[in-house]
Amino acid sequence: MVKMVRYKAIISYDGSDFCGFQRQINGRTVQEELEKTLSKMANQEILVHGSGRTDSGVHALGQVIHFDFPQDRDLEKMRFALDTQSPEDIACISVEKVSEDFHARYHVVEKTYEYRLQIQKPRSPFRRKYAAYYAYPLNIEKMQRAITDFLGTHDFSAFCASGSSVEDKVRTVYEANIRQDEENGELVFTFRGDGFLYKMIRIMIGTLLKIGNERMPVDAIPAIIASKDRNQAGPTAHPEGLYLKRVKYE
Amino acid sequence: MVKMVRYKAIISYDGSDFCGFQRQINGRTVQEELEKTLSKMANQEILVHGSGRTDSGVHALGQVIHFDFPQDRDLEKMRFALDTQSPEDIACISVEKVSEDFHARYHVVEKTYEYRLQIQKPRSPFRRKYAAYYAYPLNIEKMQRAITDFLGTHDFSAFCASGSSVEDKVRTVYEANIRQDEENGELVFTFRGDGFLYKMIRIMIGTLLKIGNERMPVDAIPAIIASKDRNQAGPTAHPEGLYLKRVKYE
Repeated sequence: MVKMVRYKAIISYDGSDFCGFQRQINGRTVQEELEKTLSKMANQEILVHGSGRTDSGVHALGQVIHFDFPQDRDLEKMRFALDTQSPEDIACISVEKVSEDFHARYHVVEKTYEYRLQIQKPRSPFRRKYAAYYAYPLNIEKMQRAITDFLGTHDFSAFCASGSSVEDKVRTVYEANIRQDEENGELVFTFRGDGFLYKMIRIMIGTLLKIGNERMPVDAIPAIIASKDRNQAGPTAHPEGLYLKRVKYE
Repeated sequence: MVKMVRYKAIISYDGSDFCGFQRQINGRTVQEELEKTLSKMANQEILVHGSGRTDSGVHALGQVIHFDFPQDRDLEKMRFALDTQSPEDIACISVEKVSEDFHARYHVVEKTYEYRLQIQKPRSPFRRKYAAYYAYPLNIEKMQRAITDFLGTHDFSAFCASGSSVEDKVRTVYEANIRQDEENGELVFTFRGDGFLYKMIRIMIGTLLKIGNERMPVDAIPAIIASKDRNQAGPTAHPEGLYLKRVKYE
């Protein structure tokens, strides 16, 4: 019997033309495309495990996957094959060998997301799939004050979309800030935490935009968290601004 | 009879999904989309004149058009309507009124183009439609020396694709340089001149890449120009790296 070798790979993808990461019956997904490439390379069925799903239209700069492959391959050749034999909206940044108990999903200790929001006028046609757009006035200073209320350990039920089967909604946010990307006329929101609930970042952004547009007070977030009520938070922001940037393991 | 007012507008577009600027029987073009928008706004047929054509897949940051419109409109309202009523891969940056003898094509005195070439590995999925890709070694210093040979007034017949009906192939290049965009892992070539022949910039890039890849000597360009022979120059580089950046009038 062939000895299987476990590989971990860092993947980047343009989410525009994918129905998200996770394999599904209808619709093109990143997982399915990677499995097709690897199965062709191995000449047998290979399953891919991701660090977690990303929704339709959401991008990844550093998604992490693992898979078992029936050969001990040169790592750069493996990376090159996975990169160039996958469709051009997927890139493979690096590949390494890992022990057979490594799991891309279960062993995550930290994830970092970025959310890009174009605020310049007119909206750049080149950024329409790579940043959300907000056409109304924003008080950035108020958003910068409000975003710090997400820091720390909280029950984030109010920031979880319905349809999630996760029971424990307590998460810890280590970093939450906003910077300006002058060149693209964009705001860049960064969130780093031990994990994020279903659509949590997009609901946090939707809430911050209500605060920035002064339709919600700057100190509203602690009470929304305490309510555990999804209806108290803002709407879910568009997917095209969201990027899974980095996944960290022990 | 309604008095027509002539407007000049600066337009940006993502060329990825267009068969170029110029109206044609089959294929979606920028000119046709702008004419559709303006004709709807005016409730009568409006013709659009561009500063020149751009090829399929080529982008514009600052294409200039003019058109005659049957109403004297507030300029920001006109810009907003043209921007938001056109498809989302076209943006309208500014609109101004001009005298009726202004012509977007005949009165051009200078054009600036940029060409973006991604040289990092792996190719970024996010830049695949917005920069060409070169996967082989490049001696950038040699390209920087060679590009200066394009400066000045020359007969650029060797850098003109067949199919051009232009008789006078003498053009003056005022600026030609290469800078590095570290953030995107790209080289950015800038060409500024009194005008450029059909596919001239893409043939100049194809020639510079042969020099950079050391398959052509660094001092080859003056002899290619003197030959007036298209076959002496390099291949035509891909369209997705090319941007019409600025058009200047008297």
